[in-house]
Amino acid sequence: MSPASTALLTDKYELTMLAAALRDGAAHRRTTFEVFARRLPDGRRYGVVAGTGRFVETLAQFRFDDAAISALADFLDEETLAYLAGYEFRGDIDGYAEGELYFPGSPVLSVHGTFAECVVLETLALSIFNHDTAIASAAARMVGAAEGRPLIEMGSRRTHEQAAVAAARAAYLAGFSGSSNLEAQRRHGVPALGTAAHAFTLVHTTADGPDEKAAFRAQVDALGVGTTLLVDTYDISAGLANAVEIAGPDLGAVRIDSGDLGVMARQTREQLDRLGADKTKIVVSGDLDEYAIAALRAEPVDAYGVGTSVVTGSGAPTASMVYKLVEVDGIPVEKRSSRKESHGGRKQALRLCKSTGTMVEEVVHPHGRAPELPDARPLTESFVRDGEVVGDLSLDAARKRVADGLTSLPWDGLKLSRGEPAIPTRIIPPGR
Amino acid sequence: MSPASTALLTDKYELTMLAAALRDGAAHRRTTFEVFARRLPDGRRYGVVAGTGRFVETLAQFRFDDAAISALADFLDEETLAYLAGYEFRGDIDGYAEGELYFPGSPVLSVHGTFAECVVLETLALSIFNHDTAIASAAARMVGAAEGRPLIEMGSRRTHEQAAVAAARAAYLAGFSGSSNLEAQRRHGVPALGTAAHAFTLVHTTADGPDEKAAFRAQVDALGVGTTLLVDTYDISAGLANAVEIAGPDLGAVRIDSGDLGVMARQTREQLDRLGADKTKIVVSGDLDEYAIAALRAEPVDAYGVGTSVVTGSGAPTASMVYKLVEVDGIPVEKRSSRKESHGGRKQALRLCKSTGTMVEEVVHPHGRAPELPDARPLTESFVRDGEVVGDLSLDAARKRVADGLTSLPWDGLKLSRGEPAIPTRIIPPGR
Repeated sequence: MSPASTALLTDKYELTMLAAALRDGAAHRRTTFEVFARRLPDGRRYGVVAGTGRFVETLAQFRFDDAAISALADFLDEETLAYLAGYEFRGDIDGYAEGELYFPGSPVLSVHGTFAECVVLETLALSIFNHDTAIASAAARMVGAAEGRPLIEMGSRRTHEQAAVAAARAAYLAGFSGSSNLEAQRRHGVPALGTAAHAFTLVHTTADGPDEKAAFRAQVDALGVGTTLLVDTYDISAGLANAVEIAGPDLGAVRIDSGDLGVMARQTREQLDRLGADKTKIVVSGDLDEYAIAALRAEPVDAYGVGTSVVTGSGAPTASMVYKLVEVDGIPVEKRSSRKESHGGRKQALRLCKSTGTMVEEVVHPHGRAPELPDARPLTESFVRDGEVVGDLSLDAARKRVADGLTSLPWDGLKLSRGEPAIPTRIIPPGR
Repeated sequence: MSPASTALLTDKYELTMLAAALRDGAAHRRTTFEVFARRLPDGRRYGVVAGTGRFVETLAQFRFDDAAISALADFLDEETLAYLAGYEFRGDIDGYAEGELYFPGSPVLSVHGTFAECVVLETLALSIFNHDTAIASAAARMVGAAEGRPLIEMGSRRTHEQAAVAAARAAYLAGFSGSSNLEAQRRHGVPALGTAAHAFTLVHTTADGPDEKAAFRAQVDALGVGTTLLVDTYDISAGLANAVEIAGPDLGAVRIDSGDLGVMARQTREQLDRLGADKTKIVVSGDLDEYAIAALRAEPVDAYGVGTSVVTGSGAPTASMVYKLVEVDGIPVEKRSSRKESHGGRKQALRLCKSTGTMVEEVVHPHGRAPELPDARPLTESFVRDGEVVGDLSLDAARKRVADGLTSLPWDGLKLSRGEPAIPTRIIPPGR
């Protein structure tokens, strides 16, 4: 199978359902599936939609080639295998633009087509949205906490090697300046950053003991004085003295990866200034999350390196989004139809804002029946029409949406403490 | 670039270090890098090593082809690019066999070779070990909690689409019976399981309302009476009656995905028995973790479907393993050499056990200098020699190791509550 094929990144039951539905004809009914989150992660006040661009891109590779078909032949009948061999999504997809904020019940993605062509996309759609949205939502909180100081994503080593690439993209989307991950640069254009680890200083050890200066000299020779030297392998104060001695006062930056980062940053700033390196920047890293970043606001920190917490969603590694069948041949459907509040039916959404731009309410309404509301911005956009990609899926546009979203949250929405969603969601039922 | 190449799944700083080290010759020094965890996730009593097989397999694809080289040309010099173009790991790798239990400080993987050939593997090695080990360690707790009842991994949708494949493998390694993920079956031989979702019942809705029987009929026609019917889309009691009416008393199984699963399982068992379907099995799913699984031990549950909690490591989504340079040209090295307890130097490990097989202590000792201890089992095995794969990397062998490990833990080690590592680790320093 082509390594780029995404067709088998799928739960078996999608294909057994397909087989059964092809047999009784239900496969050809017109359906709408919707991606949404019933709730935000515990205590979060907003989420950031991410994954739309990657999902739409992977659709083109969602093809069952010969190798994929032969992997399925032991449990699927000939008719189903023939359907899959010719599979190509020819329906419509719309939803929230990537980078929009979302709230509980927001119809983040809507997939329209036959039951057969929509049902098989469930696993891939959810994998991408649940992962990327979890990372972007955590990253946006860190961006808010950093108040304009740059953040570097360096958590590739703490997550699956391919998830790392998507995590770098999601963090960049949310406002990080770049990532350590080289494949994220190649695949998504995320600026790659980084200079050296402790291993580089340690490898300059000789029988006479450590030789930090030799390591710094080698790094400056290779990367120039604008590089970032890691100064905490042995003693930070001695490391700073060595760094400025080797690189001179035009040294680009130093990185501190251990100790009480606030105290260390202050002492480092003083020492650098004393040594005449008053333009040398200070990068801190080491177990930073949004709370630690916020706690360093008053310190002379120029940039943050963030690893584990951002790639694991800072306590919420998945966004709990679901992919639900909400409409069949125009009939709204849902599990347990006895419940009062209806979530069935194809939907769109608007966002109400004050004249200042501050958001007030999310309004989810039946498709094509937008209520007349002043200062309401339509949130639902088209991404795919009859199988063809339409609309702006650029990462730059998504970055701008996150930045705009964060400035339009009510003040309480930016609080890091646990709370309710920043705005309420009103769901207008289909009203059959 | 070949989509299968893993070379750019790497942090930029590995390659800037390489460039600087090639320039001053440090690149050619003989080094040992070690993968280990300073601690277990909060309150965990043991961990399960996973990722060894995947890491050794991906080494073969760790090649910088023309496309990769051109992606790096903007920040690397000619000499470094030429080195990478010819890169192939020719060193040695040893460590704990996949599926072994590990504890804080256990030298899980040891990579030996020149600084240049070892340093560039850091990110890929850690990504694989931190992810796979986190999943396997959580999964093993669930296997222990299930006390022999089968577990099915169905969390693909809650994690990155490629992480999902590795998560299915790691859960299977730890003792799960199979996974929903089709690619995990194709790539790793993990049995794929699953039959239908609520969408399949819902798509049989007509203008007259829901028609659960039509859905069940279609499924039984396509998949046979041995299938598993999902009975909680509307009313469970009515769903069970419909299921047995359509499939007859030989129905394979029913799945319940909502409600208080203990109460539901008991009522379901009673109703099935009353309907003559006393051999029909009961599968439960829906937000299960190791605690919920343990709480269902007394209930008539035949299998558990586990999603979010297993693929996110049940609260510990990463194993916090590090890849540290510990030896250079035979000299033990470490960050902050002033610390008392030395972790420098190439290491191996033994495990002390009682004559009953119960493990007592982990002993980490300098390479080639095993202390003489009765009832000690060597833990360090060879995986790669001079770049060639050696040793048994099969998933079946790893599954057996986990099962053996769980039975050899001291009783306290299987407790789900938070505690200390089940056995202590003694580290014998290099003693230069």
